[in-house]
Amino acid sequence: MAEYNQLTPELIAELENIVGGDNCLTGEDINEDYSHDEMPIYGTHMPDAVVLPANTDEVSAIMKLASANNIPVTVRGAGTGLVGGSTPLAGGIALCTMRMDKILEYDENNLFVRVQPGVRLCDLAADAIDHGFMYPPDPGEKTGSIGGNVSTNAGGMRAVKYGTTRDYVLAMTVVLPSGEVLRLGREVAKTSSGYSLLHLMVGSEGTLGIITELSMKLIPNPKEDMSFILSFSDIQTAIAAVPKIKLAGLNPQSIEFMERDIVDSSAEYTGNKIIPTVVDGNECGAYILVTLDGNDEDEIFQRAETLAEIGEEAGAFDTLVIEHPADKAAVWAARSAFLTVIEAETEHLDEMDVVVPVDKIAEFLGFIHDTGVENDVLIRSFGHAGDGNLHIYCCGNNIEREAFLEKSTRVMHAAYAKCNELGGQVSGEHGIGHAKKEYLRESVGDTAFSLLSSIKQAFDPKGILNPGKVCN
Amino acid sequence: MAEYNQLTPELIAELENIVGGDNCLTGEDINEDYSHDEMPIYGTHMPDAVVLPANTDEVSAIMKLASANNIPVTVRGAGTGLVGGSTPLAGGIALCTMRMDKILEYDENNLFVRVQPGVRLCDLAADAIDHGFMYPPDPGEKTGSIGGNVSTNAGGMRAVKYGTTRDYVLAMTVVLPSGEVLRLGREVAKTSSGYSLLHLMVGSEGTLGIITELSMKLIPNPKEDMSFILSFSDIQTAIAAVPKIKLAGLNPQSIEFMERDIVDSSAEYTGNKIIPTVVDGNECGAYILVTLDGNDEDEIFQRAETLAEIGEEAGAFDTLVIEHPADKAAVWAARSAFLTVIEAETEHLDEMDVVVPVDKIAEFLGFIHDTGVENDVLIRSFGHAGDGNLHIYCCGNNIEREAFLEKSTRVMHAAYAKCNELGGQVSGEHGIGHAKKEYLRESVGDTAFSLLSSIKQAFDPKGILNPGKVCN
Repeated sequence: MAEYNQLTPELIAELENIVGGDNCLTGEDINEDYSHDEMPIYGTHMPDAVVLPANTDEVSAIMKLASANNIPVTVRGAGTGLVGGSTPLAGGIALCTMRMDKILEYDENNLFVRVQPGVRLCDLAADAIDHGFMYPPDPGEKTGSIGGNVSTNAGGMRAVKYGTTRDYVLAMTVVLPSGEVLRLGREVAKTSSGYSLLHLMVGSEGTLGIITELSMKLIPNPKEDMSFILSFSDIQTAIAAVPKIKLAGLNPQSIEFMERDIVDSSAEYTGNKIIPTVVDGNECGAYILVTLDGNDEDEIFQRAETLAEIGEEAGAFDTLVIEHPADKAAVWAARSAFLTVIEAETEHLDEMDVVVPVDKIAEFLGFIHDTGVENDVLIRSFGHAGDGNLHIYCCGNNIEREAFLEKSTRVMHAAYAKCNELGGQVSGEHGIGHAKKEYLRESVGDTAFSLLSSIKQAFDPKGILNPGKVCN
Repeated sequence: MAEYNQLTPELIAELENIVGGDNCLTGEDINEDYSHDEMPIYGTHMPDAVVLPANTDEVSAIMKLASANNIPVTVRGAGTGLVGGSTPLAGGIALCTMRMDKILEYDENNLFVRVQPGVRLCDLAADAIDHGFMYPPDPGEKTGSIGGNVSTNAGGMRAVKYGTTRDYVLAMTVVLPSGEVLRLGREVAKTSSGYSLLHLMVGSEGTLGIITELSMKLIPNPKEDMSFILSFSDIQTAIAAVPKIKLAGLNPQSIEFMERDIVDSSAEYTGNKIIPTVVDGNECGAYILVTLDGNDEDEIFQRAETLAEIGEEAGAFDTLVIEHPADKAAVWAARSAFLTVIEAETEHLDEMDVVVPVDKIAEFLGFIHDTGVENDVLIRSFGHAGDGNLHIYCCGNNIEREAFLEKSTRVMHAAYAKCNELGGQVSGEHGIGHAKKEYLRESVGDTAFSLLSSIKQAFDPKGILNPGKVCN
């Protein structure tokens, strides 16, 4: 990291002047939460000031001040990240976007919504439905901010059919580290107009600029959807069914996989036993959870029949239709509780969210479980079978933090190497932050990594924006 | 442009050594076609040598030689571009990818095809269908290379439903200007693993690196599709129906618009009069051509009924179902012939392919036709109503080239300014090349333009790759 200046009382007064005294916190007024995201195990660092700007102009003024005085700035949304991306490693200013939380405009003719970055995903999703639209990206963490979702290219459950957050960003307003304001992209569906700075910003984790407004694509809300639980003896058999479902043109909205242990934990934790554990006398070892959507109920039923046939051929004990809205809510609540359940049962947690080709999921899961056993680390996992994005947790109880990290890091090294060998990616949707930087370098190689650093240099020559992250 | 060295006989001998004597052309062996793309009006420049490498290693060896000796290299695919992107402005080496024309592998489990960049779109599309897949991007120019399609983020007719070429690029092999070989992306559907160099390469028009292999996403081929012609009194009424069709959740594969004059010309040129000109005694002034696809015929018929209802409410004279495969082929042949028809009738041609918001299409078309009249330039137009991508042609006959260009440039300046005012983009799918550079700068502004140049500098510090294009 570069050398920075300290925030002086004069600079703090200027910050207060920009955002108002109530929206500039210093000293003991700063909540400890601002020192980390949801993975404090990767290290905590307090900022010297927290500012909560209300609009693009205020963000621009903050960055002009920071740039002129060489003060580091780390952007933060809802703080739900999992790779330390919003941890202010160099101190300085934590710039929180959560006061910019307005849904500004629905454009029905051109099918997009204009929002500020601090709108939470759950609020945007619900509001879009009220307007007759679907905002398709559906990451598990619903309270994350939409700015954070764009900054990590969050994916979620529905990526199989609808793609990731990247596919829904039409345009954005960005404040550069210099304080200059750029409008990237336009509210149109096609473009071939120079290198895509818009796509460069997506997934850049607050290191290239600060997103202050977003135009996100919407689709008409599908009228019907139906979920199905296919139960199998083991994970290998379950995963082997996935390419068949995709090849059959069933166009599922989501295909999630679940192993029995996490289903049991979730049932115990939530009291919700909606997912069957024994089917026709067979002990279930693994499941896939499929959702089909569309506008025509009959046509969905037809796809459901094909799904059941494919399931049977692939060795499923059963294809359970989740018909009642209450049951559907219960199933997805069980699925959404997985991370909470793991967190509740675990003292020390390390995690990875690699992506591997769909037909390599079972091999990777076998490898990671074996590697856990070899290193005496409990592994829990679940994830997106339809796109190969796996959430893998190293869990430690009754062990010192350092001793745990030594073990979990061994597991991580082996697992990321295996992921590379299988043609996978370091992260599907959580990003790199500072926790996964070295794994990114190993994965992409020195030449590509140095291109990333050159791009960072072009946007942020002083290196003041989110230092220590991704490639800097 | 930078200062370059000339190709010496020694360097040509080295090139021959790399690609074989038959695949290195110099002097009078170089066909004049290599001096331009499909728009010679933007200027022609002969290369000093044309090389046709067979694989990544040969491309890498060529670039190492060019880099060490400061020789400019311009990449060329099928030469079907429309903005002078493959014109070797600085002479030097024209590197043609068309010998790298193999479809290498279909991966059915992970739904992608691995190809060399010189495969033509029509060949990939047909071969994919033979394998049970659809390669969704469908630009009008079917003989373009897939490498060129990626380099311009080509869009085409089906972008309304399926997106543009960008959305189908999973991974690529790239040779950097230095000759280093990078593998970007992976054959997986999700990633949040550092700034997306893959998305930076898409649409970079051969200025950042040379694509030597591509992994393109496929989808299962929809079993059914049906096309419909909706006829209207005028273009305003026709275009006003488009947002209604999209909002209704009909999920059309394509929505094209056609004005009467071009339909008449096409009918005359092709002898194919499939598109009606009078319906129930009403003279048709404009049309939209809609295609619906899916796996269930009944469900498509249901959507077709809704389409007809929407059409009627929006003032369509009729919604003509194109049932016979022969009729469907005839309608799409008529549509595909538009550019050919214009070229056949025109001595001097200048063109733009702006994108505007869908509900601004009619306003823009009105403006451009008025501007044509004011400047005494005949305007022809057609395009993609579903995504606002308009193909606009300035046509000149019985006039000197320079006099025509003076007039058409006035029209272009006014039209690009209007496009900016309406929130549009300079190019939907043709790119920037050297013909549209100044319009790009005006559209994105100096700050963004200089970021583009910095990125170019990071990839190509010597400026040897495709000089004079996009932002350099």
